[in-house]
Amino acid sequence: MIVVMKHDAADQTIRDVVSRIESDGYQAHLSQGAAYTIIGVVGESPTPLRQENYSSMEGVEKVVRISESYKLANRTFHPADTKINIGGVIIGDNPIAIIGGPCSVESREQIIETAWAVKEAGGVALRGGAYKPRTSPYSFQGHAENGLKWLAEAREQTGLPIVTEVMDAAQLPIITQYADVLQVGARNMQNFTLLSAVGQTELPVLLKRGMSATIKEMLMSAEYILAQGNRNVMMCERGIRTFETETRNTSDINAIPVLKEKTHLPVVFDPSHATGKWEYVEALALAGIAAGADALIIEVHLNPEQAMSDGRQSLTPKKFQQLVERVQRIAEAVNRTVLTPAPVPTSGD
Amino acid sequence: MIVVMKHDAADQTIRDVVSRIESDGYQAHLSQGAAYTIIGVVGESPTPLRQENYSSMEGVEKVVRISESYKLANRTFHPADTKINIGGVIIGDNPIAIIGGPCSVESREQIIETAWAVKEAGGVALRGGAYKPRTSPYSFQGHAENGLKWLAEAREQTGLPIVTEVMDAAQLPIITQYADVLQVGARNMQNFTLLSAVGQTELPVLLKRGMSATIKEMLMSAEYILAQGNRNVMMCERGIRTFETETRNTSDINAIPVLKEKTHLPVVFDPSHATGKWEYVEALALAGIAAGADALIIEVHLNPEQAMSDGRQSLTPKKFQQLVERVQRIAEAVNRTVLTPAPVPTSGD
Amino acid sequence: MIVVMKHDAADQTIRDVVSRIESDGYQAHLSQGAAYTIIGVVGESPTPLRQENYSSMEGVEKVVRISESYKLANRTFHPADTKINIGGVIIGDNPIAIIGGPCSVESREQIIETAWAVKEAGGVALRGGAYKPRTSPYSFQGHAENGLKWLAEAREQTGLPIVTEVMDAAQLPIITQYADVLQVGARNMQNFTLLSAVGQTELPVLLKRGMSATIKEMLMSAEYILAQGNRNVMMCERGIRTFETETRNTSDINAIPVLKEKTHLPVVFDPSHATGKWEYVEALALAGIAAGADALIIEVHLNPEQAMSDGRQSLTPKKFQQLVERVQRIAEAVNRTVLTPAPVPTSGD
Amino acid sequence: MIVVMKHDAADQTIRDVVSRIESDGYQAHLSQGAAYTIIGVVGESPTPLRQENYSSMEGVEKVVRISESYKLANRTFHPADTKINIGGVIIGDNPIAIIGGPCSVESREQIIETAWAVKEAGGVALRGGAYKPRTSPYSFQGHAENGLKWLAEAREQTGLPIVTEVMDAAQLPIITQYADVLQVGARNMQNFTLLSAVGQTELPVLLKRGMSATIKEMLMSAEYILAQGNRNVMMCERGIRTFETETRNTSDINAIPVLKEKTHLPVVFDPSHATGKWEYVEALALAGIAAGADALIIEVHLNPEQAMSDGRQSLTPKKFQQLVERVQRIAEAVNRTVLTPAPVPTSGD
Repeated sequence: MIVVMKHDAADQTIRDVVSRIESDGYQAHLSQGAAYTIIGVVGESPTPLRQENYSSMEGVEKVVRISESYKLANRTFHPADTKINIGGVIIGDNPIAIIGGPCSVESREQIIETAWAVKEAGGVALRGGAYKPRTSPYSFQGHAENGLKWLAEAREQTGLPIVTEVMDAAQLPIITQYADVLQVGARNMQNFTLLSAVGQTELPVLLKRGMSATIKEMLMSAEYILAQGNRNVMMCERGIRTFETETRNTSDINAIPVLKEKTHLPVVFDPSHATGKWEYVEALALAGIAAGADALIIEVHLNPEQAMSDGRQSLTPKKFQQLVERVQRIAEAVNRTVLTPAPVPTSGD
Repeated sequence: MIVVMKHDAADQTIRDVVSRIESDGYQAHLSQGAAYTIIGVVGESPTPLRQENYSSMEGVEKVVRISESYKLANRTFHPADTKINIGGVIIGDNPIAIIGGPCSVESREQIIETAWAVKEAGGVALRGGAYKPRTSPYSFQGHAENGLKWLAEAREQTGLPIVTEVMDAAQLPIITQYADVLQVGARNMQNFTLLSAVGQTELPVLLKRGMSATIKEMLMSAEYILAQGNRNVMMCERGIRTFETETRNTSDINAIPVLKEKTHLPVVFDPSHATGKWEYVEALALAGIAAGADALIIEVHLNPEQAMSDGRQSLTPKKFQQLVERVQRIAEAVNRTVLTPAPVPTSGD
Repeated sequence: MIVVMKHDAADQTIRDVVSRIESDGYQAHLSQGAAYTIIGVVGESPTPLRQENYSSMEGVEKVVRISESYKLANRTFHPADTKINIGGVIIGDNPIAIIGGPCSVESREQIIETAWAVKEAGGVALRGGAYKPRTSPYSFQGHAENGLKWLAEAREQTGLPIVTEVMDAAQLPIITQYADVLQVGARNMQNFTLLSAVGQTELPVLLKRGMSATIKEMLMSAEYILAQGNRNVMMCERGIRTFETETRNTSDINAIPVLKEKTHLPVVFDPSHATGKWEYVEALALAGIAAGADALIIEVHLNPEQAMSDGRQSLTPKKFQQLVERVQRIAEAVNRTVLTPAPVPTSGD
Repeated sequence: MIVVMKHDAADQTIRDVVSRIESDGYQAHLSQGAAYTIIGVVGESPTPLRQENYSSMEGVEKVVRISESYKLANRTFHPADTKINIGGVIIGDNPIAIIGGPCSVESREQIIETAWAVKEAGGVALRGGAYKPRTSPYSFQGHAENGLKWLAEAREQTGLPIVTEVMDAAQLPIITQYADVLQVGARNMQNFTLLSAVGQTELPVLLKRGMSATIKEMLMSAEYILAQGNRNVMMCERGIRTFETETRNTSDINAIPVLKEKTHLPVVFDPSHATGKWEYVEALALAGIAAGADALIIEVHLNPEQAMSDGRQSLTPKKFQQLVERVQRIAEAVNRTVLTPAPVPTSGD
């Protein structure tokens, strides 16, 4: 941490800051310039260094943090890529994973038919929400446990592992019975109770970026999960909120190489939410892979005009298949491959 | 709802949209221009009109909603101001309420001493967090139930009602034993499980705006609470996230008159979070009242340099007292008064 | 300036940075911690310190600037408030100035009649655009020099000084013949050629904040004007662009106390553009004064439904008069007064 | 245009709106629902339909525009891609063009040496600023006409056409003597005087998106140029300003497919400004091409640590060469090729 004193800070106020640093258990190094005095804070101590407290002291102009607050998510301390196994599919290795499926599980037939379509098109995992966070209390809120059962049936038939959202810690006892991956949605990225709770499960977590969360805040949210012992966190960029209204969100593709540099965790890109309009999803899916994403998560619906949610941004199975084929070509151009779905599980004997 | 057809939409696609409208139970009114065909959708039906589904239909250029999705929060249907009683203090009436207190309850002594200071300065309610949402898992997370007990003790001594944050539905059985007002924090403004849960309590709710939530989304979140039967919701503007980094957030003071127009619910302003720096808090408090806010919620700390959280934006009791005095003058200028704290409850016989 | 070296920076890269600092003519102070090495750069030298160049050096984690780049606008070096005389009206002193007038000068009759209405309501200066920056090339672009002549006639009759926009340096020879204040619009806040050109005139400048400009960038733009010798710059907050669509812009009222702290230049607030809807203009005008603004600039139109531009945000003269009266009460509450218009100039003796 | 009347609009106010529509020369179609009355405005008339005026009328809830205000830039009316010839290089056709060069022309030697390096790496045009818009009046402002002469010399030697910025209409007589492409910078995207002036030249224009401009505003700015008769406009996405501070700007890659859909003009992507850090430039360049951009413009500096501007985001020639090679692979994956530089012009006999 660095404390910059005000232009006209009295000697006594400088001494007070130095005393506080020392009483917090750190060392203070002064650089005295003509215009400003800078105090470098170094060393280690059990007392946390609260930037805000130093900012509040008399004579202090500003306080600059140096080291990142996330340790477990930080690539500096864990240089090797984390690879995560979701029901036999590895995310974070060279081969790229494509996850497809509807926004909501709408019926047993819908999810099973979609799962087959996703698999035939080349998807290796199935997404689908049984508990749906909806802006309006009057919108469809999901089929809850029935939805989970239908997802499980789709998995049983197709072999595709399941990614499904958890909205509240209290849902975990049920959801963990069915899910292969727990999705934490954008609106819950800073629901710290939920983050801690999923951190105590053994399931991989897909953590979506909050719509106005900085990359650092997203890394801190991953840290909440990691700190509870669950090391299988995937970072999902899904677009951020900006002034632009032509698309539902603004894809922050910059975040992909930034995250790959700062953390060892796999990076997933969601071009469906990041654009909000199906006609732009493929272009963005290709861009995400070109920029270095490890996986894609794509909304697929058998009949978007009838979808109970997110119809505007859902691909038909046919368009999804075309996307997968084109992603394969981009993957090759960046020396990667695309995972292909496992053969259907045969039911024994 | 209005459906605008594309410039080159075929007659058949127009007929398809009309059919869908009719099969959803509504009437379609066509306005056929040289360049565009516009279809007005009117009438009522049990089938929800899903804007997204119509947007996905062939030939559709765009779909525009007309009526607001929030009904219970909507002033159109409830013109009279809602007035909320929090432990004897009325919020939403002519007199302005000023709520003060620390970000976190740090100790029994701290909260009791602060409560007295808030009251002496003219505050009519006490804020203080026992459960703290913190960006970092390594930061102080609050004293939990002990914090609540100390708050209750402060109330008992001073008579000030208590505003305290609930982070998760599972905390409600405990928090409702102590709190006078349940605060839903900015990061939880779209935690729909939590919104529904506080909607099932009988306590007034202070709903803080999410840092990138639109005013409409905030109204929809209030609607979640109201729809569960709890009609005592206060709308709290606390700054939004923008590109400006000179202050912690950007105060969206526009939101105050907008909310007063659109909803009958009281509007509270939090200049502490909206600026993030104590030196700007007073100016913004005055601005908020001048713009029409019904109440202020202000962070007050006995010693901001030692605060365990939010020290940078906390006022000392002395500065808080000056703020209250200046707010009184602004209130008068807009033909309002400022509530004064009730006399200390006498424990007597 | 402070250079923070990377966690694993080799000793040689640290020595290289120190050498560069010394060869640029500054002194380097090292603070060596367990995890990071911090290099404080102090002293003075004719060679500019380019933060970006140091950022590009091997082993450098980040570079933090300490001193502000604006000198002439900086209150640190010029503590006393700057007071600006615009045609006899002083801006930046205790009394608050209210400027009113239409977005565009539409006709001779319109501007003269509006000037009288502004004056009767209590306005002390007249705004009106003769050269209009319009988003569409097909919209009304202003009456150019005719507009200026009509403005001058309005001034002659009413005595109100004139604030009018200059869009391009080439317009200055004409506009300076008529204007009392040169307005630099939001879209030109970083038109550096124009800034330098108005800096070479002797007229006061009203500098509007760019819709996505930071407060620091705005101060740097003021510095461009000041550096050319023109010390009469007014800083005008007019709302910034955010994700919120309920209002045309988001009023950054925080910017008012921030600017008052950082610069000695007067601060003007424009609630018309900052909200974009006339029904919110008064509430924001009051808020701006409560927060410390020295002046208001308000759009007034005789008949907003017929306005050739900005009708949606224009007040009628009657509503403007009410605003002035209410501003007077707020001004009093913050120990200020409101300037009243001078008596009509009598023609001759 | 559609006018939505308020819930409680009186019949007379509805009639007033209809009258105004008719007196403006259009037809009004009413759709009367239980809750709202919608008025569709169709037909053609010489009187412009001012959305704002209708918004200001009594009883009007909101007014929605249907048709886009840009005609010449609109793909609806000009379906075929525009192809632009810049000194023999075609932009907007299947083959992708890569433009490289320094932010500023710093010296004769620098620009000539860089031009050769750009060409050897595979660049087909040279960028370099002779007039530099700088945030600070104290920063290097460019070598002006000398810079242009050195650029011309670089072109003469290497055959690469020149892209250089014009900051003000008054610079055009000089710059047009040297440039092959006129760049309008982000800060000038709504400098309408400049847009009109470059529209009157015969040189192709590279129009950079303003840092907070919407896609629609960018199209309207192109329309300014096109409306003057210059049909050779390239749309350049260069990142927008958001709350994220990890990168200098946020690449709005969504804008690439959106622009390709809405306009026939070529789309250029500038990953240098869009990220602000050289280490992310390549990833974003690949993403931009995968998303459908027609060209890239990249900052290249012989020695970024010594650059007089933008060193932090400049690639060395070696890294630029690697970028070109990788772009070639992505181009192939999307069925495109990459233009290769023409052989050096021989100085004939």
